[in-house]
Amino acid sequence: MRMNRGRLIVFSAPSGCGKGTMLAEILKDERFYCSISATTRKPREGEADGVNYYFLEKEDFVQRIDRNEFLEHACYCGNYYGTLVSEVESKLDAGVNVILEIEVQGAMKIKELRPDALFVFIAPPSVGELRRRLNKRGTETQEVIDKRVAQAAEELKYMEKYDYIIVNDALEDAVNDFFTVIRAESLKTSAQAEFIEEVIKNA
Amino acid sequence: MRMNRGRLIVFSAPSGCGKGTMLAEILKDERFYCSISATTRKPREGEADGVNYYFLEKEDFVQRIDRNEFLEHACYCGNYYGTLVSEVESKLDAGVNVILEIEVQGAMKIKELRPDALFVFIAPPSVGELRRRLNKRGTETQEVIDKRVAQAAEELKYMEKYDYIIVNDALEDAVNDFFTVIRAESLKTSAQAEFIEEVIKNA
Repeated sequence: MRMNRGRLIVFSAPSGCGKGTMLAEILKDERFYCSISATTRKPREGEADGVNYYFLEKEDFVQRIDRNEFLEHACYCGNYYGTLVSEVESKLDAGVNVILEIEVQGAMKIKELRPDALFVFIAPPSVGELRRRLNKRGTETQEVIDKRVAQAAEELKYMEKYDYIIVNDALEDAVNDFFTVIRAESLKTSAQAEFIEEVIKNA
Repeated sequence: MRMNRGRLIVFSAPSGCGKGTMLAEILKDERFYCSISATTRKPREGEADGVNYYFLEKEDFVQRIDRNEFLEHACYCGNYYGTLVSEVESKLDAGVNVILEIEVQGAMKIKELRPDALFVFIAPPSVGELRRRLNKRGTETQEVIDKRVAQAAEELKYMEKYDYIIVNDALEDAVNDFFTVIRAESLKTSAQAEFIEEVIKNA
């Protein structure tokens, strides 16, 4: 039997929704790989090339843009960030599901380019709960929290553009819901063309 | 919070696919109800009205057709069979998911009338395996088995019209897949309009 191609999964969440913790759980399953972005910003303390990011020189990055090597890219605060096509396609070909952890506007770009991708949004139970969680951490000033909550509220407006919304109320349930979505997608008739063909041919 | 309406689920499988056993497992979960058909055929030994079927007089049945009381109905071997709208809607309103266990042609009629329904097809791993299972029962003549296999092969051609295909290779896995599909459907953005509205309103 031919190996099925992996699925491209766009995974977005406002900050404070536990996206990082969820991803860490999901990535324990070897059927999933989280795409590493390329960037022109300098590595921070403890960051390694090919682990946190692919750190590229600006000239190299711009040339790669010209050669259409990016699935999407954007410039924030003077630094480029992008997803390399090569990074994604080789894994998909190997049957691995590739997760793009990406903010809503990048996600909308991917949606135009790759409508076959699966769009999953991780939402907080409510914005009030999101604020409580950020407050509870106690690591940020009220001003920073206000800014992050306002940013989250903005991102939530894009939620309806996604295929699935998983509310992260309890980590384990949210992770289970993610795997549930992946399994159900594989049971869709559109994902089983090969099975249908084989069964009917041998009927 | 307002109670969500139940989902109408069309559930089809060729004979020998373990549909009955799967349904028995699914119906242990009180969120699911299997619609009882109405028929004009006479009750067989052990069959009870309101349990196996609603047994109606032909005149009553025909009048109900005229009053549009059926979601779908058909005539086989001189007897009428049909699904009463009242039977379905009251349960859906109560938040219960209503399963219509129905053959492929009835399912296609429902698809035209109720495109919002969820269409689930239970398939055998292969037609060869289906034949092996029917042979193994040892309760039917080879002629009857041949006929049922031919009928199944015919029904499999409709498989691609369904939303999901669950291969019943092992009962427990197939039942889990069914619940997986139901959960994933509830995580779809289209099923979460109320949550989206509420979160954004309070953001």
